[in-house]
Amino acid sequence: MNETERNLRADGLTHFDAQGRAIMVDVSEKAKTVREATASGRIRVSKEVRAAIENGTAKKGNVLGVARIAGIMAAKETSHLIPLCHPLPLAKCAVEFDITDMEDKTTDAYVIARATVRTTAETGVEMEALTAVSVALLTVYDMCKAIDKRMEIGAVHLDRKTGGKSGDFVR
Amino acid sequence: MNETERNLRADGLTHFDAQGRAIMVDVSEKAKTVREATASGRIRVSKEVRAAIENGTAKKGNVLGVARIAGIMAAKETSHLIPLCHPLPLAKCAVEFDITDMEDKTTDAYVIARATVRTTAETGVEMEALTAVSVALLTVYDMCKAIDKRMEIGAVHLDRKTGGKSGDFVR
Amino acid sequence: MNETERNLRADGLTHFDAQGRAIMVDVSEKAKTVREATASGRIRVSKEVRAAIENGTAKKGNVLGVARIAGIMAAKETSHLIPLCHPLPLAKCAVEFDITDMEDKTTDAYVIARATVRTTAETGVEMEALTAVSVALLTVYDMCKAIDKRMEIGAVHLDRKTGGKSGDFVR
Amino acid sequence: MNETERNLRADGLTHFDAQGRAIMVDVSEKAKTVREATASGRIRVSKEVRAAIENGTAKKGNVLGVARIAGIMAAKETSHLIPLCHPLPLAKCAVEFDITDMEDKTTDAYVIARATVRTTAETGVEMEALTAVSVALLTVYDMCKAIDKRMEIGAVHLDRKTGGKSGDFVR
Amino acid sequence: MNETERNLRADGLTHFDAQGRAIMVDVSEKAKTVREATASGRIRVSKEVRAAIENGTAKKGNVLGVARIAGIMAAKETSHLIPLCHPLPLAKCAVEFDITDMEDKTTDAYVIARATVRTTAETGVEMEALTAVSVALLTVYDMCKAIDKRMEIGAVHLDRKTGGKSGDFVR
Amino acid sequence: MNETERNLRADGLTHFDAQGRAIMVDVSEKAKTVREATASGRIRVSKEVRAAIENGTAKKGNVLGVARIAGIMAAKETSHLIPLCHPLPLAKCAVEFDITDMEDKTTDAYVIARATVRTTAETGVEMEALTAVSVALLTVYDMCKAIDKRMEIGAVHLDRKTGGKSGDFVR
Repeated sequence: MNETERNLRADGLTHFDAQGRAIMVDVSEKAKTVREATASGRIRVSKEVRAAIENGTAKKGNVLGVARIAGIMAAKETSHLIPLCHPLPLAKCAVEFDITDMEDKTTDAYVIARATVRTTAETGVEMEALTAVSVALLTVYDMCKAIDKRMEIGAVHLDRKTGGKSGDFVR
Repeated sequence: MNETERNLRADGLTHFDAQGRAIMVDVSEKAKTVREATASGRIRVSKEVRAAIENGTAKKGNVLGVARIAGIMAAKETSHLIPLCHPLPLAKCAVEFDITDMEDKTTDAYVIARATVRTTAETGVEMEALTAVSVALLTVYDMCKAIDKRMEIGAVHLDRKTGGKSGDFVR
Repeated sequence: MNETERNLRADGLTHFDAQGRAIMVDVSEKAKTVREATASGRIRVSKEVRAAIENGTAKKGNVLGVARIAGIMAAKETSHLIPLCHPLPLAKCAVEFDITDMEDKTTDAYVIARATVRTTAETGVEMEALTAVSVALLTVYDMCKAIDKRMEIGAVHLDRKTGGKSGDFVR
Repeated sequence: MNETERNLRADGLTHFDAQGRAIMVDVSEKAKTVREATASGRIRVSKEVRAAIENGTAKKGNVLGVARIAGIMAAKETSHLIPLCHPLPLAKCAVEFDITDMEDKTTDAYVIARATVRTTAETGVEMEALTAVSVALLTVYDMCKAIDKRMEIGAVHLDRKTGGKSGDFVR
Repeated sequence: MNETERNLRADGLTHFDAQGRAIMVDVSEKAKTVREATASGRIRVSKEVRAAIENGTAKKGNVLGVARIAGIMAAKETSHLIPLCHPLPLAKCAVEFDITDMEDKTTDAYVIARATVRTTAETGVEMEALTAVSVALLTVYDMCKAIDKRMEIGAVHLDRKTGGKSGDFVR
Repeated sequence: MNETERNLRADGLTHFDAQGRAIMVDVSEKAKTVREATASGRIRVSKEVRAAIENGTAKKGNVLGVARIAGIMAAKETSHLIPLCHPLPLAKCAVEFDITDMEDKTTDAYVIARATVRTTAETGVEMEALTAVSVALLTVYDMCKAIDKRMEIGAVHLDRKTGGKSGDFVR
């Protein structure tokens, strides 16, 4: 029984050891492979915010351009933000946005952010993708909050991960 | 007409100047007053994750204790993450959690995070509160993702802000 | 004779004490006033790089938009980078660019970056403005180095500072 | 056609995808090899500043010793400062200085900084070397600005890089 | 009863609220005054390490010069390292060293580090002084560990604090 | 004679080159192997502090839980704090605590922190383990200083290291 197995807990909380102490779990016996994760989320914005973003994007004040940079830089800060997350080299990080009407046909809209992160490492980059999405959406909030403070961030989730022993995941 | 007024744009995007260039907007003429913001959000978790969190909280593996520290520390990193956010001294930061049943009576549950941040400064701390909530919920995801990768973060919004010239806001 | 005076050295190196030890010099007896600094610098680029930047700016790949964000975020990191620099709240930070022909009519061009930083504090923000300019220009280098590695950064200097006991400075 | 090729743009701006969105470009298919880069730059200083630096170096107040540490530590921060730069392990970082007379025989002098950085990674360390040089020279400015604010940083460029598929570069 | 009082716990653990949740405690009602703290500590080193440090200091390889910079820079990172510590502007930071014989006349020696930090803020800088001392001594360890890995850091404590409502403290 | 050997100095200060300049020493020719280090240290606390920690641990205010997270996160910041330390990926980090009576039977007690860090890299993780211990103990100080400011951190040392060419070390 190796250390990783000894750390397996019945309740599945792998970030704690058998005594319940938080640990950054040992990955030194795992294979270094190419791993990729895609996460997405959205922020609900008013008609006025949508117009400001769309006009700014087309012309000058580029809200989504700034949010994209914030998301990419945040992916690189993930292990400094999430206490038990392993520091990893990142091979790639991309963040893209879409703006869509609401399902229920109100005048509000969704700005959707999707981040894809890739690494060659012993552990995956789900948290990097989720952090990039969250900070990109927070940046949209920050840049538009003078217009409307009621924006809401939601549906932040993992879309897909590939690579690693636990197998691929598609939501 | 002072610089702040010159920076007012018709579309309300105060983080851009009249030429559409992103700026950290001038707050040097604003009054330094006590300002407070409360934000909240939630993560939807499965029955198994809920049980792991609740048993851990009661006994040893304290998911929410770790997430609380992550949230408080992230509030202090806000201006390093959000590109046009002002660096501010923080006078207070608190993060609390609740676990509730779903409205629709499925077996899933919500872990709700709520952060309150206070400062004495020329500008408010909405972004600090929202960042604390987001990183606290990302930490819950990280610590429970070995059990379930389908957790989803949502309803991240500003509940309330007080202080400052723009007046109080309650959602 | 107060501590600031005791720290004055004949050679003017105020970042060392009388025994030659590096110190972050005491500013607690200085008045908290509005202080502003403007710095600028430039990077010499080839015709091809200039075209890529100008086309990108007009259309899609916004080199200068990314460099602006990098410069503003770097201003906020100044005290973490420059060992004896005081951590300060920043009230404003703006970075702007110009592209000009070379004086000597070669086909190369200069991308000029200019940063203005303002604070209300006991000490000035020259280093914040100079750091913003340097990192903005390094970012231009990074984004264009696949086209040409011979770009050169130069003429990084303080243009102007106002506020503080030592009086205003205009180069 | 792999993803790296798909990302190749006609204008050579590899930090943008085909839609013009800034990305941290995928390096996961590149070979991990030893790569080294050397960059240099200089700051023009007055006779008084030169004397303070030279006397301090010889005796006690070690301006260049502090600037060297600042440069080495900045090399390690490069991916946090330059938005689309990959985080890399660094195998070596050295910063050295020279002080020389001006070419035109004025009484001013140049303090020259040269940084060499080495890694074993999928991508090079040009930006790390350039960042080390820039921050080292900014630190010289900071430590001597009480004597003279007219110092100017210039000639910051890549001297040489080795390793990697694009071949060696010597300026 | 204001919030600070409500947070007072019978056991004196002010970094927890009445429900036992870790908080960054509210200091917004405290007066902004000049506060200073001095902390010290020491590392026990072998005769060989002492000789290397003393010769290096006198001549070229300046262990203590590097450790001083590390300590000053660490003081500025304190609130990023200590979870519930308030981010503060620092008005001054100085680190000094002494080398002394052991009390018990063995051939080992102590390198003593002493840090003094000053601020004008609502709360004190004990943690900044203690962090500066700790990181300065860790840096001595790092720079000399190729000679001897048995060095031991000890006697890290607060010497003195002044300013603030709780009164002065001298150990 | 390779560069590593050229850098060997008679006095053993490997963090300086032959000219006495501080360098981050070249490790690119060293083998990437699994390396582990364990370090420990302690803080002397009064009877009152011990009671607060023990009751808090058992019940709600979890001083050691917060200190553990601080230690783990600090291990990841080591190369940003220690100037000449190499940035490394970390495969594992664990921090544990014990509370013991004093040897001399006073009513004071020791809180002992022990950190174990593992990596697969060209150089070891002694500094990461020592930094984790130091910051964990500083966090205990911070959280208990309202009860007693006389706590003292001591006995911070390397217990053991394995892996790497210099062989294993057990204190």
